[in-house]
Amino acid sequence: MIPTIELAAVAASALYGILRGLRDGFDIVGLLCVGAATAFGGGTLRDLFLDRTPLFWVEHEYLLWVVFGLAAVSAVTPRMVARIEPYLIWPDALGLGLFSVAGAAVAVNEGMSPLIAAVMGVITGTFGSVICDVICNETPNIFRTSPLCATCALLGAIVYLTGESLAIPATISQPLAITAAATLRLLAVWRKWIVPVRLLESVEPA
Amino acid sequence: MIPTIELAAVAASALYGILRGLRDGFDIVGLLCVGAATAFGGGTLRDLFLDRTPLFWVEHEYLLWVVFGLAAVSAVTPRMVARIEPYLIWPDALGLGLFSVAGAAVAVNEGMSPLIAAVMGVITGTFGSVICDVICNETPNIFRTSPLCATCALLGAIVYLTGESLAIPATISQPLAITAAATLRLLAVWRKWIVPVRLLESVEPA
Amino acid sequence: MIPTIELAAVAASALYGILRGLRDGFDIVGLLCVGAATAFGGGTLRDLFLDRTPLFWVEHEYLLWVVFGLAAVSAVTPRMVARIEPYLIWPDALGLGLFSVAGAAVAVNEGMSPLIAAVMGVITGTFGSVICDVICNETPNIFRTSPLCATCALLGAIVYLTGESLAIPATISQPLAITAAATLRLLAVWRKWIVPVRLLESVEPA
Repeated sequence: MIPTIELAAVAASALYGILRGLRDGFDIVGLLCVGAATAFGGGTLRDLFLDRTPLFWVEHEYLLWVVFGLAAVSAVTPRMVARIEPYLIWPDALGLGLFSVAGAAVAVNEGMSPLIAAVMGVITGTFGSVICDVICNETPNIFRTSPLCATCALLGAIVYLTGESLAIPATISQPLAITAAATLRLLAVWRKWIVPVRLLESVEPA
Repeated sequence: MIPTIELAAVAASALYGILRGLRDGFDIVGLLCVGAATAFGGGTLRDLFLDRTPLFWVEHEYLLWVVFGLAAVSAVTPRMVARIEPYLIWPDALGLGLFSVAGAAVAVNEGMSPLIAAVMGVITGTFGSVICDVICNETPNIFRTSPLCATCALLGAIVYLTGESLAIPATISQPLAITAAATLRLLAVWRKWIVPVRLLESVEPA
Repeated sequence: MIPTIELAAVAASALYGILRGLRDGFDIVGLLCVGAATAFGGGTLRDLFLDRTPLFWVEHEYLLWVVFGLAAVSAVTPRMVARIEPYLIWPDALGLGLFSVAGAAVAVNEGMSPLIAAVMGVITGTFGSVICDVICNETPNIFRTSPLCATCALLGAIVYLTGESLAIPATISQPLAITAAATLRLLAVWRKWIVPVRLLESVEPA
C-alpha cells in the first residue's frame, strides 16, 4: 500500500508544481524542472542533511519517469490538466502525510533524536512547495497566512514518533500518522483553518 | 565564552530573519522557518560543502529550541520584538565575526587550504542573510551597495588564517579575528562604509 | 584540450553571472558571489547529489581565482566587460556542452544508470544559470519560452551515453557529444529555436 501512496504523493506534488508552471507560461522543459523540484525537493534536502546516499529518486528511478510523463502530458494538453486541479487536494493531503511520516521515519532509522526526526518530517513534507514558490518567484505560500500545512506535517511526524516511543509497530503507527496529517490538511483547506496568530497589521513595513 | 557568543550569533541571525518575516506578514510557522533558515543557512551550506555529518544544528539541538522560542515570542508580541531591532547590530556583528571564524576553523580542521577556508568562512558568515533575502523574494542585500558585510567576514577569516600560518594558538587568534570582523562590521554600519566601487550608473539595463 | 575548454566554460558562466549582476547594480562582492554561483552552481549540486568529495572547485582551486579575477576586472571596467557580451555565446555554448558531458561522465564513473547520468548532465549544464536567475530575483530563463538550453545539455549527455553503451572510447564520444550540444545551442540562439510547445495563452492565470 505504501508504494501506491508514495507514487500518488510524488505525482500530486509534481502536478502542483506543473500547474504553477503552466500559469506562469513555462515551456515543457520548465514544467519538467518545476515538477521534479516540487516532487523531489523535500526528500532531497532531507537526504542531503542526513548524508544519505543514494538520494531517494536516484534509488527509485521510476519516480523520474512519472514526473517526465506528467510534464509531457501537461505540456500537450494543458487545459485538460488544469481541469484536474480541484481534485488535487486528495493526493496533495495524502502526499503531505506520507512525505512527513516517511521523512521522520528515515531520520529515526539514521539514529536521529525525536526533535531532529520531527524537523526532517516537516522539511520532507513541505520543502517541495517552498522550492516551487521560490522558482516561480513568489514569497513561499506556507510562510504567509494560508491553510495549515507545516502544522499538518508536524502532526503526522509527532503521531508517528509518539508511536515509536511507545514501541507501537510501524505498521500501525505509520498509517495512523499519515491519516492524522492528511485529515488535518483536508479540514484546514476546506474550512480555511489558519495558524491563529495574524500579524499582518501589527508591524509597520520598514 | 565561545558557546555564549555562538548562542548570541544564532539568536541574532534568527531575530534578523524573524523581523524580516514580521514585516512581510508571515505567520508563526513562516517566522520559525525564516528564522531557522537565516540562523542555520550558512553553517549548513558549509557542512554540506565539506561533507561533514552531522550538521551543526543536528549536533547542537538546543540551538533549534532557541530559534523556536524566538519565533513563538515574536509571533505573540511582534511590536515588542520590533522594538529590539536597533540593538540587534551588536549580536549581529558578533555573530558575523564568530560565524566567519568558526567557518574557517572548521574548514582548516578538515584539511582545507587557506583559500577554501576563507571561502567557507565568508559562506558561513553571510549565506544565512542571503537565503533570508531569497525567501523574502528580494535581491540579496549584500550583493547590492550596502554596508560592508562579506568583507568583514573575509577580514575575520584572514586574521584567523594568518594566525594559523604563524602557529599562533587558536585561543589567541580566534578572539582577535572575531573582534576584527565585528569591529569592522560595526564601523561599516555606523559610518555607512560601502565597497568603494559604485556600478549602478555605469551599465545600461538590458 | 579538456582543461582549456573547462576553463573557458567556467569563465563564460562566471561572466554571464557577472554581466547580470552589473545590470542590477551589484557591487564587487555581489559580482564575485553571483559569478561564482553561476560558474560553480551546477557542478556543486551534482557533487552534492552524488555525495562526491571534495567538490570540484575545492579540488581545482585555480577556478576560484579565475572567477575572482573576472569579478575584480568587471567591477573596475564595467563598460569594457559589457562590450564582450555579444561574443559570450561561443564560450557559453562550449561551456554548456562541456558541463553537461562532464556531469554525465562523472555520474557514470560513480556507477549511476544512464537515466540518472543524463539528469546529472542536464543539472550540471543548466543549474548555474537557474541559480543566477533566482539570485537576481527573476523567474529562471530556461523555464520560459527561450532558445533551447536544457535540450542541448540533454543532447550532449545522450550522445555521450550512447557512445558509452556502444563501448566507444571516451576520447571519441566526449568531443563528439560536446560538439553536438554546443552546435545545437549555437543554432538555437542564432535561429531563435524554442521548444515547440507554447503554453502562455492556454491556461488562465489563477
